[in-house]
Amino acid sequence: MGFSLLILLATIATAVAFPINNQNYLVMPHGPLTGSGACVSWRLAVETNNIRDFSNKIPDKCEDYIGSYMLGSQYRQDCKLVCDVAYEYAKGLNLTGDGKDVWIFDVDDTTLSCIPYFVEQGSWELNVHSSYAQWTAKGGLPVVPEALDLYKKLIKLGFKIVFITAMHEENTESRIKNLKEAGFTEWEKLIFKGDVLVHSAEFKSSKRKELEEAGYRIWGNIGDQWTDITGTNIGDRTFKMPNPVYYVP
Amino acid sequence: MGFSLLILLATIATAVAFPINNQNYLVMPHGPLTGSGACVSWRLAVETNNIRDFSNKIPDKCEDYIGSYMLGSQYRQDCKLVCDVAYEYAKGLNLTGDGKDVWIFDVDDTTLSCIPYFVEQGSWELNVHSSYAQWTAKGGLPVVPEALDLYKKLIKLGFKIVFITAMHEENTESRIKNLKEAGFTEWEKLIFKGDVLVHSAEFKSSKRKELEEAGYRIWGNIGDQWTDITGTNIGDRTFKMPNPVYYVP
Repeated sequence: MGFSLLILLATIATAVAFPINNQNYLVMPHGPLTGSGACVSWRLAVETNNIRDFSNKIPDKCEDYIGSYMLGSQYRQDCKLVCDVAYEYAKGLNLTGDGKDVWIFDVDDTTLSCIPYFVEQGSWELNVHSSYAQWTAKGGLPVVPEALDLYKKLIKLGFKIVFITAMHEENTESRIKNLKEAGFTEWEKLIFKGDVLVHSAEFKSSKRKELEEAGYRIWGNIGDQWTDITGTNIGDRTFKMPNPVYYVP
Repeated sequence: MGFSLLILLATIATAVAFPINNQNYLVMPHGPLTGSGACVSWRLAVETNNIRDFSNKIPDKCEDYIGSYMLGSQYRQDCKLVCDVAYEYAKGLNLTGDGKDVWIFDVDDTTLSCIPYFVEQGSWELNVHSSYAQWTAKGGLPVVPEALDLYKKLIKLGFKIVFITAMHEENTESRIKNLKEAGFTEWEKLIFKGDVLVHSAEFKSSKRKELEEAGYRIWGNIGDQWTDITGTNIGDRTFKMPNPVYYVP
């Protein structure tokens, strides 16, 4: 299986991993990504919300391609452009200064990266209900540096930051520690999901509705999942961070 | 300018153009697309609705890359996967057989291709209000073969087809002729835009609302523009056909 080669390379790559905020952020050296083929179409179809719940299992034939993308510079470049475009939009807004202008951030694979989870387990398959939740609870997830850059710039512009994550409330302490260590040191609200049975889309819509009912104006909303940025009360502009690895319903 | 090279190659390529429904469909032979870089990020950002109204002007540095994509096999492959995924979804539905189960298709660059417009004018810039409307009115646009395949399969499954296009009503006759020549021979409704001043998004939402109020169930909705598949009454599932060339607000 091609992924074992990735692991080997990733192990070698840790030697050249560079620290961001005192965390080793894994970036694997690799050649140019192939620009054509069925897996390229598959990734585009996921990113454009055409392929939806794929049981968090990338087609076998696409594991190497998706792995190279996630561990390489193109993923970083894609993240950066989304955050740059978001900042250009944010700069053009006239904020009132009443403290009610908010920007919503998702957490996992928007502000904190879950890439090491996949590298450690040796597969790009995500198991939401067991190992994944345990892994995130351990803390130590590296920052998504492009999102941290956007976060800092938005605060300078006067936005209040609201984090909404569909992860459950059990591990709030370690997650808060993780966010702070990664550089996300302040927020207006940090909202975790209490009810395990509610889908992320429904949960996030209801929390955004509560924010608007409390007088907040949601100018921007950024997440790696379509369920972060669809539904109701999505905000004036939404931004999709790349993530071709899993789908949260 | 790199585009002149494309024109030259496209001219050569007409020699190998293959006929689809008696129309020569332009496909240019070219090497593998590069899979990385700023223009790859730009295209993804357009396709994911992060970059929106870009005045229908691709960044100069990306004209060659976008041109190679649009004239090459990857665009075709991307179109095919979207249509395949849409059909998989459609097959799983239980239709009532009361004639109210509809699927909405956009027209330009969803069912009929505007690629020859760009090739003829020698640039990937779209001028919505002059040359583009005149060009589509002439007729003779080639089919998007993957969409025709989906259209035929949906009719076999029992769907009624509704075309909604934001093009104005001036040229209905030639456009109907064009659709029929391309193989789209039947429909429940074909809706053109009367009011020039209404934005496509607003217009399409209002027409979909009218459909639902008339008792139609919109199961699927496919278009190349985000404004085809966002707004209100979007349908149970939406499908985004690729189009990194222009943005219709």
